[in-house]
Amino acid sequence: MHTQTSFIFDLDGTLTDSVYQNVAAWKQALDAEKIPLAMWRIHRKIGMSGGLMLKNLSRETGVDISDAQAKRLAKRHGEAYEQLQGQIIALPGAGELLETLSKEKVNWCIATSGEMATAQINLKALGLDADKIPLITRNDAKAGKPDPSLFLAAAKKMAVPIEECLVVGDAIWDMLAARRCKATGIGLLSGGYDVSELERAGALRVYDDPLDLLNHLDEIASFS
Amino acid sequence: MHTQTSFIFDLDGTLTDSVYQNVAAWKQALDAEKIPLAMWRIHRKIGMSGGLMLKNLSRETGVDISDAQAKRLAKRHGEAYEQLQGQIIALPGAGELLETLSKEKVNWCIATSGEMATAQINLKALGLDADKIPLITRNDAKAGKPDPSLFLAAAKKMAVPIEECLVVGDAIWDMLAARRCKATGIGLLSGGYDVSELERAGALRVYDDPLDLLNHLDEIASFS
Repeated sequence: MHTQTSFIFDLDGTLTDSVYQNVAAWKQALDAEKIPLAMWRIHRKIGMSGGLMLKNLSRETGVDISDAQAKRLAKRHGEAYEQLQGQIIALPGAGELLETLSKEKVNWCIATSGEMATAQINLKALGLDADKIPLITRNDAKAGKPDPSLFLAAAKKMAVPIEECLVVGDAIWDMLAARRCKATGIGLLSGGYDVSELERAGALRVYDDPLDLLNHLDEIASFS
Repeated sequence: MHTQTSFIFDLDGTLTDSVYQNVAAWKQALDAEKIPLAMWRIHRKIGMSGGLMLKNLSRETGVDISDAQAKRLAKRHGEAYEQLQGQIIALPGAGELLETLSKEKVNWCIATSGEMATAQINLKALGLDADKIPLITRNDAKAGKPDPSLFLAAAKKMAVPIEECLVVGDAIWDMLAARRCKATGIGLLSGGYDVSELERAGALRVYDDPLDLLNHLDEIASFS
């Protein structure tokens, strides 16, 4: 028996170099609402859905964030992120990795906790068209990561069992969500997490970035 | 016998929330010189002296950086960092921690890999005057971290043996430099490194930020 591996990719920090802009955009939004939060605390929550992130930061720091404020924060974040979009570029090897998988007839799908508008900014940096690739955004699932709904939706879109999927992500939320749905997590350092954070969250292997993963593809998948 | 512990503090990311601005400033400088480097790779080098960081990044990525370019990069970084200075604030507990140590008559000194101009930006955020506190900058030592020269200069300034000093820092370079001069490293997560990166680099204990360290001060030092 030879099972075919399929790939589910996170977007922000996994295929594009955008995590630090994302942190800066949240910081700008929080500052505007006079909510004092250190940058590293925001960084460690990136990859969660925005709503979950705010709930989590609020619980962790004791800072009260009302529903109305959360809505304003999301809007301000979106605006700030859009202003920074010129800085966002593809990570080394991202395009080649997806092309290689397509050439090898391996299924892949991008599953992001971001809304479609945020996803578009990152897809543009990759030279990809949202209408022409398998894509799951926050709009397609009931809950963002670390809930596994996005990954389950991605597996469904590819019509493959989730157990045969590799989830490639840079955040511990990707790894936790992968474990929660019995997929296999593969970590990348390109979002600024450390190897052991990703391993502690369940990553089977950790690579530097998409290029490093591409160079070690045979460690994690077999091709016929 | 009761030895008196003295404290050597890193500045950027340890007392002020400035690492992410520092990363952004380097990114801006590197982009202007058309040197492509992912943000996480820059982040992982922050805390080294600027010159050493460029040498290191160049060796690691194979990107050639000439001496003339390194000079332009340092200048551009300085300008970009200055533009971002309005965003830089003290980390929670930073002021209280230094005040507590002063009140307890415990020696402390700030030792930063940055030049005086960069240090001034961070000291301003802390409400401190460079002329009125024990301070060692890159200008006072032959080499930046992870070379231990800065910490040795700080111990000398306080007239205490380096072996009785705690080095508090957010970067693995602080921890490596501490180990190299037989000081004791204490890590903080506020620069965006993970606990295990700091521990692997020799940190005896790791706390969230200056406030968390202040709340656990008795774990690492005795007061008479």
